[in-house]
Amino acid sequence: MKLSILGCYSATPRTLNNTTSQVLEINNHMFLIDCGEGTQVQLRKHKIKFNRIKHIFISHLHGDHFFGLVGLISTFRLLTRETDLHVYGPKGIKEVVTLQMKLADSWTNYNLFFHELTSDKSELIFEDDKVEVHTIPLNHRVYTNGYLFKEKEGERSLNVLAAEKANIDIAYYRKLKQGFDVVNENGETIKNATVTKAGKKPKSYAFCSDTMYKEDIIPIIESTDVLYHESTFLDKHAHLAVKTKHSTAKEAACIAKKANAGTLLLGHYSTRYDDLNAFKKEAQEVFKNVELCDDGKVFEFN
Amino acid sequence: MKLSILGCYSATPRTLNNTTSQVLEINNHMFLIDCGEGTQVQLRKHKIKFNRIKHIFISHLHGDHFFGLVGLISTFRLLTRETDLHVYGPKGIKEVVTLQMKLADSWTNYNLFFHELTSDKSELIFEDDKVEVHTIPLNHRVYTNGYLFKEKEGERSLNVLAAEKANIDIAYYRKLKQGFDVVNENGETIKNATVTKAGKKPKSYAFCSDTMYKEDIIPIIESTDVLYHESTFLDKHAHLAVKTKHSTAKEAACIAKKANAGTLLLGHYSTRYDDLNAFKKEAQEVFKNVELCDDGKVFEFN
Repeated sequence: MKLSILGCYSATPRTLNNTTSQVLEINNHMFLIDCGEGTQVQLRKHKIKFNRIKHIFISHLHGDHFFGLVGLISTFRLLTRETDLHVYGPKGIKEVVTLQMKLADSWTNYNLFFHELTSDKSELIFEDDKVEVHTIPLNHRVYTNGYLFKEKEGERSLNVLAAEKANIDIAYYRKLKQGFDVVNENGETIKNATVTKAGKKPKSYAFCSDTMYKEDIIPIIESTDVLYHESTFLDKHAHLAVKTKHSTAKEAACIAKKANAGTLLLGHYSTRYDDLNAFKKEAQEVFKNVELCDDGKVFEFN
Repeated sequence: MKLSILGCYSATPRTLNNTTSQVLEINNHMFLIDCGEGTQVQLRKHKIKFNRIKHIFISHLHGDHFFGLVGLISTFRLLTRETDLHVYGPKGIKEVVTLQMKLADSWTNYNLFFHELTSDKSELIFEDDKVEVHTIPLNHRVYTNGYLFKEKEGERSLNVLAAEKANIDIAYYRKLKQGFDVVNENGETIKNATVTKAGKKPKSYAFCSDTMYKEDIIPIIESTDVLYHESTFLDKHAHLAVKTKHSTAKEAACIAKKANAGTLLLGHYSTRYDDLNAFKKEAQEVFKNVELCDDGKVFEFN
């Protein structure tokens, strides 16, 4: 599981600060999360192949999280993309993208699917045999969802020598990896656990931005390996966090602690602060395992 | 008259190439012309004060000319702008900007005026005591206008010594600068030309992008001091220029020659070309005074 931070600052793009966008690589998927203005240039800088992005998840329709979307969709067209693209985001996202395409008299030459979200309950919105994506309803000034990306329980790891010794026909190996007991060539039932062990522990990543402190999300993100939680403000500006429905670093850490997260990533910093270390310091008073996001930073979680 | 090129490449923003946007400083106005994605960051790089921009002219609604507009308008709001802003562009521009503001539940705290264009004839769309702006109807795949920015004839330059010698009361000096004859203290009529000379020659700038070769524009831009004319392609790709309704460098030069322009600026290059000098070379076969635009380049015309 690999996370590339394309941008992690609020609320306007600047010469050295990009607005929110991330790429999560998980089980051969490349998920784009949020798409602030300039995201397509950030993707180029990171040498991320446009065609590998098949799913884009937009948290909410504030500009610093989605003004780069229509440009990216247009660029895909200009590059003669043929791969399907799925866009998940709040209701309205389809209208605004299609209006701009209509005005430009330009339509995609690939299939573009919008999955508009309206629920205030967590929903399963994407699933294949390896990964699930769930919404995390957040509390911000407009309708907002975070996203929980979860690997599914993988296949069990087969001890081939033990299976041979137990006289199991090779045709049953797949069944064994899937966790079933099998009958060997002597007609004996072989307990699965005697020839396999648990596979790689599935990973999960929870993206929570933008939101005020919201304990309701804890059961949804419980024990996530990695939690990105916005921390727009430091504690001294907690009143601004309340006013604008954002969080402080300490509040992000409280959520990480109560949700029993593995690692907390901080981001969505207000550009009023010069020193990001203050965010880490404040968060670590509550929760130890804190990392600071920054534009261009890549995290690998193995 | 000063022109800052923020971006001059078609058709997608890249790490080192920005899409179309320019700032024209003329007679204390700061006009923003087109607004591709990332323009607000380019404005910051150029240290152009956001508040000085009061008029934005959008040629057409292709993304590489206007996807940065809504972000700029939003950023103005976040920076608590109070100055009025006027946006000129094709019909539809108001709907797309207001829809995005509605979805973000964010409204400007300054007055935002849209001037939507629909005519296929040249129109006077802005005028004050010093400057006029006219549309230049172009021929592209969607409704498109170029813009002609013209200083008005300035005041005449007064020879104060000659006026004193002619016994003219100081109260008449303004009239003299405005070109009138006046009566001196002896009751004699003094011919204006005997105590004044022509003031600074008014400058003009014509912005023409995007368009295929269109001779109809020549009477509108006749004798302009500076002509920016798109040159997306070199001659070897003239067939692509026809197909996509763009121009070659040579065609841009033909327009400059026939319109008797002072200087021709080339831009809107396709990113397929590595060497911009080929554009200059081809244009100079037709018209001598050619300059190449490039991102970050600043031209001063005095």
